[in-house]
Amino acid sequence: MSKFITFEGCEGAGKSAQIRYLAEYLDQKGIKYITTREPGGTPEAEKIRSLILDPHAEMSGECEVMLYAAARADHLKNKIIPALESGINVICDRYIDSSYAYQAYARGLGFETVQKANFLAEARMPDVTVFLDLPPEQAFVRKGGADKDDRMEMEGLAFHRRVYEGYLALCDRFPQRIVRIECSGEREKTRSLVLAALTDRGII
Amino acid sequence: MSKFITFEGCEGAGKSAQIRYLAEYLDQKGIKYITTREPGGTPEAEKIRSLILDPHAEMSGECEVMLYAAARADHLKNKIIPALESGINVICDRYIDSSYAYQAYARGLGFETVQKANFLAEARMPDVTVFLDLPPEQAFVRKGGADKDDRMEMEGLAFHRRVYEGYLALCDRFPQRIVRIECSGEREKTRSLVLAALTDRGII
Repeated sequence: MSKFITFEGCEGAGKSAQIRYLAEYLDQKGIKYITTREPGGTPEAEKIRSLILDPHAEMSGECEVMLYAAARADHLKNKIIPALESGINVICDRYIDSSYAYQAYARGLGFETVQKANFLAEARMPDVTVFLDLPPEQAFVRKGGADKDDRMEMEGLAFHRRVYEGYLALCDRFPQRIVRIECSGEREKTRSLVLAALTDRGII
Repeated sequence: MSKFITFEGCEGAGKSAQIRYLAEYLDQKGIKYITTREPGGTPEAEKIRSLILDPHAEMSGECEVMLYAAARADHLKNKIIPALESGINVICDRYIDSSYAYQAYARGLGFETVQKANFLAEARMPDVTVFLDLPPEQAFVRKGGADKDDRMEMEGLAFHRRVYEGYLALCDRFPQRIVRIECSGEREKTRSLVLAALTDRGII
């Protein structure tokens, strides 16, 4: 059975590298997969992504939540579900937990509002979510500062601290689904921890 | 108490003209109001409007519903609610019933999906909704054809027939809130019917 695997974490936690490692591992095993990302993943969702991340945007928090949910609805319907239904594993860089961490917790919109906006995604939750646990103070150093063309990255450290704490709250809330991987060490070490966690759970 | 008045109907039913007549009437009475429209009404919502109405867009129906709801969330938070709270009446060209008529009924997404996507608007429903009842066959003649830069208008007559039938279903579903005004006659006659209906209900 194909699996839906998502990666979550603060900016700079190393999601891209770990997704690449996982993809290489699956290639070696001859296991079929696609990698994708949020917000985005389909042409329409990518357009919505540009709208959300535009540094000049001045939308309400509620609008932002709904836009992420709209992009996710298209991504789910036109890419994720079709792949899963044809037996292909899906590895996604960010999914619904990003909305919970960034909007529900960091922006203070509350879990319920974000959950209601994501009623379509709630019907297709990931089989497993890998949370790459790196506090934002360390992530910022690793990343070498924020990307000035990205509205989320331009938020200050206090915001990213709240995002991080949101992720920790999500780990407590969904212990069955979310695997927390400590990743302040070398990437290779994190790679082993991720692969071990996914193997132990029978995901890969 | 300020009122939230929405106008609904098929393309070409004459919403713009009737809103202008109502505005003139309120001007004469010295009653404060703003007029606005959906999708749109705020800078961010207008950007979302362009995305939705783009003739080259190929989004899923679910994504379209969510985008309308996102635009509506911004409009509500940044324009409609602030006006109502400062004692100003709001006259809006289209609101949640358009999502029900176009998406729930005409696109066949179902009432429940559209209602869930619009959970924020459901918390601030109009005080009254004027449905300008003109069958699409007549509206098309009156309008002189569809606007080729607008994805909704480019849908065929069968689609607009389903929209119209959706509106009739909404009139049955919300008889307290929706006033149905037959408007196949002269605009001046429709104007009298609209003003009489709003006066009778103590709205204006």
